[in-house]
Amino acid sequence: MPKGQPNVVPEDGLTTRQRRNRPLVMVHTGVGKGKSTAAFGMALRAWNQGWPVGVFQFVKSAKWKVGEENALKVLGATGEGGRVDWHKMGEGWSWIQREPAAGEPSHEEKAREGWEQVKRDLAAETYRFYVLDEFAYLLHWGWVDVDEVVAVLRDRPGTQHVVITGRNAPEKLVEYADLVTDMSKVKHPMDAGQKGQRGIEW
Amino acid sequence: MPKGQPNVVPEDGLTTRQRRNRPLVMVHTGVGKGKSTAAFGMALRAWNQGWPVGVFQFVKSAKWKVGEENALKVLGATGEGGRVDWHKMGEGWSWIQREPAAGEPSHEEKAREGWEQVKRDLAAETYRFYVLDEFAYLLHWGWVDVDEVVAVLRDRPGTQHVVITGRNAPEKLVEYADLVTDMSKVKHPMDAGQKGQRGIEW
Repeated sequence: MPKGQPNVVPEDGLTTRQRRNRPLVMVHTGVGKGKSTAAFGMALRAWNQGWPVGVFQFVKSAKWKVGEENALKVLGATGEGGRVDWHKMGEGWSWIQREPAAGEPSHEEKAREGWEQVKRDLAAETYRFYVLDEFAYLLHWGWVDVDEVVAVLRDRPGTQHVVITGRNAPEKLVEYADLVTDMSKVKHPMDAGQKGQRGIEW
Repeated sequence: MPKGQPNVVPEDGLTTRQRRNRPLVMVHTGVGKGKSTAAFGMALRAWNQGWPVGVFQFVKSAKWKVGEENALKVLGATGEGGRVDWHKMGEGWSWIQREPAAGEPSHEEKAREGWEQVKRDLAAETYRFYVLDEFAYLLHWGWVDVDEVVAVLRDRPGTQHVVITGRNAPEKLVEYADLVTDMSKVKHPMDAGQKGQRGIEW
């Protein structure tokens, strides 16, 4: 609950308004819960501002995040806030029209296709708020080059906020990002033998 | 991204189904961002399950959490998921009909009024998912007794999930809770002189 009072005033030659509206790159990393969930919670604020929201889910999951997906799609469709586009790697990415060919691309190729689309959308300023969900894994695995990601983010035009989630966010990304939160696990029900359950885990 | 596989199987005499549907108490604490945001993100899943959701905001804020509040109220009103009730301490709590008297109750008294209502709602099973936002502060300040809170949570009937947010969650609550995440600040824009901005902080 920061009170909106900066600790220092930077000597960057910017006005308060320029500084206030500076586009942010945010990273939610760590082994605890809440990395993606907090990103989707932030998307509620973006939606409420009327901003177009783009979600890119980079790691295929058996259960995906159906609760958040349904909720954000319903919100996007009300017309009371921004629109919401939800793209999933495991379903071939929504901008790819063709059926997957016989030699279907690997996970790594599909992940890179997603990143190429993010680059196109950043260049076109398609969204004002991006959730790159589980994207940190791709950087950690070396599937996408972290230097390229930092360069693309640094050069992005306009006012586009980007949240990147996932364990093991590389140090170069952490250095570049404006806000980094580490979600640490203090205690988790699975440690006590509790299985995931609906309404909680998905 | 836990894969749903428990690390150990407890010797508690419960079936997997009983264990799976066990009501949870979750705590988001620490000095970093995302404690409340992740709780509201979880509320999206609860809404998507059709569960009634009760939000209690325990600490008065100049900006509240208007983005999340508007989004969850819009979702609740669609009828496509669960209903959402949003209660704020600073606006006199929604269940109190009367105008505040001349000798308006203190923050501490208002906070305790909120807790009394949570107790009534838990007893009546009014909601299936509760967000007690910033409630950990009240426990830390001693406004509400942590032993009483743990006893009430332990004895709550039915399947009611409760998320408590706020810094400095007392050890007794952490010990009792099923899931505890500590949000640590790695880097925050305010450290670099960045002020809070719309769509991001609220």
